[in-house]
Amino acid sequence: MELTRFGVSIDDELLSKFDQIIAGKGFTNRSEAIRYLIRDSLVQTEWESASQETIGTITLVYNSHTRELSDLLTQLQHRHYESIISTTHIHLDDENCLEVLIVRGRGQDIKKISDQLTSARGVKHGRLSLTTTGKDIL
Amino acid sequence: MELTRFGVSIDDELLSKFDQIIAGKGFTNRSEAIRYLIRDSLVQTEWESASQETIGTITLVYNSHTRELSDLLTQLQHRHYESIISTTHIHLDDENCLEVLIVRGRGQDIKKISDQLTSARGVKHGRLSLTTTGKDIL
Amino acid sequence: MELTRFGVSIDDELLSKFDQIIAGKGFTNRSEAIRYLIRDSLVQTEWESASQETIGTITLVYNSHTRELSDLLTQLQHRHYESIISTTHIHLDDENCLEVLIVRGRGQDIKKISDQLTSARGVKHGRLSLTTTGKDIL
Amino acid sequence: MELTRFGVSIDDELLSKFDQIIAGKGFTNRSEAIRYLIRDSLVQTEWESASQETIGTITLVYNSHTRELSDLLTQLQHRHYESIISTTHIHLDDENCLEVLIVRGRGQDIKKISDQLTSARGVKHGRLSLTTTGKDIL
Repeated sequence: MELTRFGVSIDDELLSKFDQIIAGKGFTNRSEAIRYLIRDSLVQTEWESASQETIGTITLVYNSHTRELSDLLTQLQHRHYESIISTTHIHLDDENCLEVLIVRGRGQDIKKISDQLTSARGVKHGRLSLTTTGKDIL
Repeated sequence: MELTRFGVSIDDELLSKFDQIIAGKGFTNRSEAIRYLIRDSLVQTEWESASQETIGTITLVYNSHTRELSDLLTQLQHRHYESIISTTHIHLDDENCLEVLIVRGRGQDIKKISDQLTSARGVKHGRLSLTTTGKDIL
Repeated sequence: MELTRFGVSIDDELLSKFDQIIAGKGFTNRSEAIRYLIRDSLVQTEWESASQETIGTITLVYNSHTRELSDLLTQLQHRHYESIISTTHIHLDDENCLEVLIVRGRGQDIKKISDQLTSARGVKHGRLSLTTTGKDIL
Repeated sequence: MELTRFGVSIDDELLSKFDQIIAGKGFTNRSEAIRYLIRDSLVQTEWESASQETIGTITLVYNSHTRELSDLLTQLQHRHYESIISTTHIHLDDENCLEVLIVRGRGQDIKKISDQLTSARGVKHGRLSLTTTGKDIL
């Protein structure tokens, strides 16, 4: 294993906060922490491009008063009805909605469904979280 | 306990089917079966008018292509967001939706929410099923 | 259509309550109300024995402290995992649980799953409510 | 804003994969990509320690045949029943379970609930994903 060294430019304030996190999480130095972040982002990216079957949850928060947004989200979801196992809808208050979709399919397909939904005009926050079907884990 | 006897007029075909059900369910005679049906309808009616807290599930089937129906159902549900714990939405096929609401509140209030949703234009089938919070049952 | 007349024995108190319901619901006489109840029970029974695909919700209320009941219910459900689309679990209070299963399959199969779950020792209340896949309803 | 420069040691293979991701995501150089990862980790950490109300989903995958694990997870969840809005349970196959909890509360409390559940013996994979109540986002 060959080691390479490269430099990172960063503003002082951000670096100072990062150093606090590093200390809190128990990393011994910045390189170790950066390698952890890089590895974690690789895992997520490989997952999202995977062609094997996986399970994802897509979380959406939006305002139910946004005209025709519920209609649009329902119709987008119906196009992928074979992949979406269920959607749980929580009425957070008199206007905000939370929808949690459970999706089964190839990582890359789940990623596409997630991108379509989270980019719909009026969605305040969207998040994709990938997990596993449990089959390949003993 | 005083017993009364009253007569029921019914067409032959319906009675014949009812007799089959009675036999299948193990009732000893028609009076017993009729008393069971009457008692069951009383329970349901008392439940629906009850002022004590209970739990209900409201099931809706509708066509997602019906213009603005998703929007309407979402907005109706938001008016009662404090009573509706969660809504599970299943995309049955490329157009049909199933929504199952879990509602907590007084029987009569749950009944009203159910009536508003099931009477929305475009809802194919709606059903209210009441159960219990489990508190008063040992 | 031939009409038959048969007699029903019933205790006074039950009949008196039933007469109130009849009045409240707008039936013109007891025969009409009884025929409605009989027809309704036939529909439910035919649904439960149907071989065509339908959708049902099974509602269970139980005490989470009942030893090994969660394990048992989970294992019973796994035997039928191909029919059970999703199960929503609500923690009603510090001990009571609500589970709402959404099941897809032949009416008679859904009925069997429901009977197994609701008869599990420790289940306080169980209810099957059948609806439709929406396909045969315009 | 003062800029600081620090060095990172990393093995060649990891760096090479990271460079591919950087190109794919459209970052202009490694420093920009590293700053993004640092910022993202700060957001997640601040969220998890936040005292303001937020919404999280906790995803668990486990084997339903693991003795008493369902019982344990149900009891752990009941201790926090006031924070857990609903749990959706999907029977993935004849033995693997997916549970998706929707939790409302302070970020740090949600984090604690998540840690308890994901560390339960027999849980194959657990994931916490935090979002928002939508209130502070216009």
